[in-house]
Amino acid sequence: MATIGIFDSGVGGLTVQRAVLEALPDVDTVYLGDTARVPYGTKSAETVTLYSLRNARVLLDQGIDLLVVACNTASAVALPALRAALPVPVLGVVEPGARAAARATRTGRVGVIGTPGTVASGAYQRAIAATRPGAVVVARACPLFVPLAEEGWTDPDDEIVRGVVHRYLAPLRGEAIDTLVLGCTHYPLLRAAIAAELPGVALVDSAETVAAEVRALLPGARGQGRHRFFVTDTPERFLAVAGRFLGRPVEHAVHVDV
Amino acid sequence: MATIGIFDSGVGGLTVQRAVLEALPDVDTVYLGDTARVPYGTKSAETVTLYSLRNARVLLDQGIDLLVVACNTASAVALPALRAALPVPVLGVVEPGARAAARATRTGRVGVIGTPGTVASGAYQRAIAATRPGAVVVARACPLFVPLAEEGWTDPDDEIVRGVVHRYLAPLRGEAIDTLVLGCTHYPLLRAAIAAELPGVALVDSAETVAAEVRALLPGARGQGRHRFFVTDTPERFLAVAGRFLGRPVEHAVHVDV
Repeated sequence: MATIGIFDSGVGGLTVQRAVLEALPDVDTVYLGDTARVPYGTKSAETVTLYSLRNARVLLDQGIDLLVVACNTASAVALPALRAALPVPVLGVVEPGARAAARATRTGRVGVIGTPGTVASGAYQRAIAATRPGAVVVARACPLFVPLAEEGWTDPDDEIVRGVVHRYLAPLRGEAIDTLVLGCTHYPLLRAAIAAELPGVALVDSAETVAAEVRALLPGARGQGRHRFFVTDTPERFLAVAGRFLGRPVEHAVHVDV
Repeated sequence: MATIGIFDSGVGGLTVQRAVLEALPDVDTVYLGDTARVPYGTKSAETVTLYSLRNARVLLDQGIDLLVVACNTASAVALPALRAALPVPVLGVVEPGARAAARATRTGRVGVIGTPGTVASGAYQRAIAATRPGAVVVARACPLFVPLAEEGWTDPDDEIVRGVVHRYLAPLRGEAIDTLVLGCTHYPLLRAAIAAELPGVALVDSAETVAAEVRALLPGARGQGRHRFFVTDTPERFLAVAGRFLGRPVEHAVHVDV
């Protein structure tokens, strides 16, 4: 029996859960979306760390064997505090994403896009440099990408989408990167528009790499395929979109005040 | 001596404080920006009410004589709970905005734009109908306006700004409104772009009306011109932008965990 805990600032981490369930179909999961305090990406490292510790406590109380921090911002700033505080292994999305980028690049010139909090932390920059010494990392915050994705404006032919993507990413064209890390769980929804702006650049989404590392940590993990969902805001809005992110129906979520 | 408490989900309420200080230059103020949990506009009425009550408690502990709820979403959903719980008068921005719109319209056809929470609450619609029976109110949520304003993309000649404003507001053109309520403290930053999209429509910003109502409730209020600021996230980001919103320097803010 193995139960995997996953938290994110909101609903985006369900894309990570989806990848985990593709790698380990029978495992049990407990997901917490901190929907009352989303987003994390514009908040300070101190506040994000505090919220991350509270979220982890809720999941620990549910008997998890491993914690996946699906939020890039929390992974970037709160991992040391979480690892110090928790009695179970803690896996973030930054290190797997950095390793995937180091494998994907041929030229050693890598771009990273994320929230202001993720970019300011320097976590991806450090993790990529540690995996591939000598790599050049160019990081860029793209604050409008999350609201665009949440509004459902993701069509690469939409002139607003194209304009916003161009404004953030055109400066990366001059940097001759060959790989770009999508350092936020919402960004894969904009993948087509990003690819159109940066043709020939490999796009790295850490969800699959995280799933592979979860499987490596819990080989042969099995459960009853039981999946529970907790949210800090009322469940209605989460339930309305969760199925789309997870790729399977989500019918019930429990409200918790953390 | 009179001390006015003001809270908002973040920094936007400082535009309301600015108008209050223009009406009552000598009054003392205590401002709380809930920067750790911003935004409110996409969250449930239950969560926004809970946060509003906690914010009000912090301000009450500072000895305020009157509470101004500068956040439109909190004004739209939490005012009854705040009025029931607090021993001081509570003034929101919705009712003053609705009264200003009822005065401004000649045709009785009024538009309201705000966050999803404000629009879904129906508070403006009810308040305008109560002030001007028979008025037709057309409400529209504009979720991208807050992130646009926070990113500083507000130039009416910016094609992205123009595109977003057009997408949200073009449907209002067919409604023959003559007045539009800017039902979110961030929206006045986009006033020029909104005016360009809806020429001939009177734009109502509730800050001035709120200030006039505060003066009516506290006639001749005086203090020492002392202004204190509290935030729930770390103060750095707030301090970096607060002066621009308030129109005078803000040098110090105290972190509180609510």
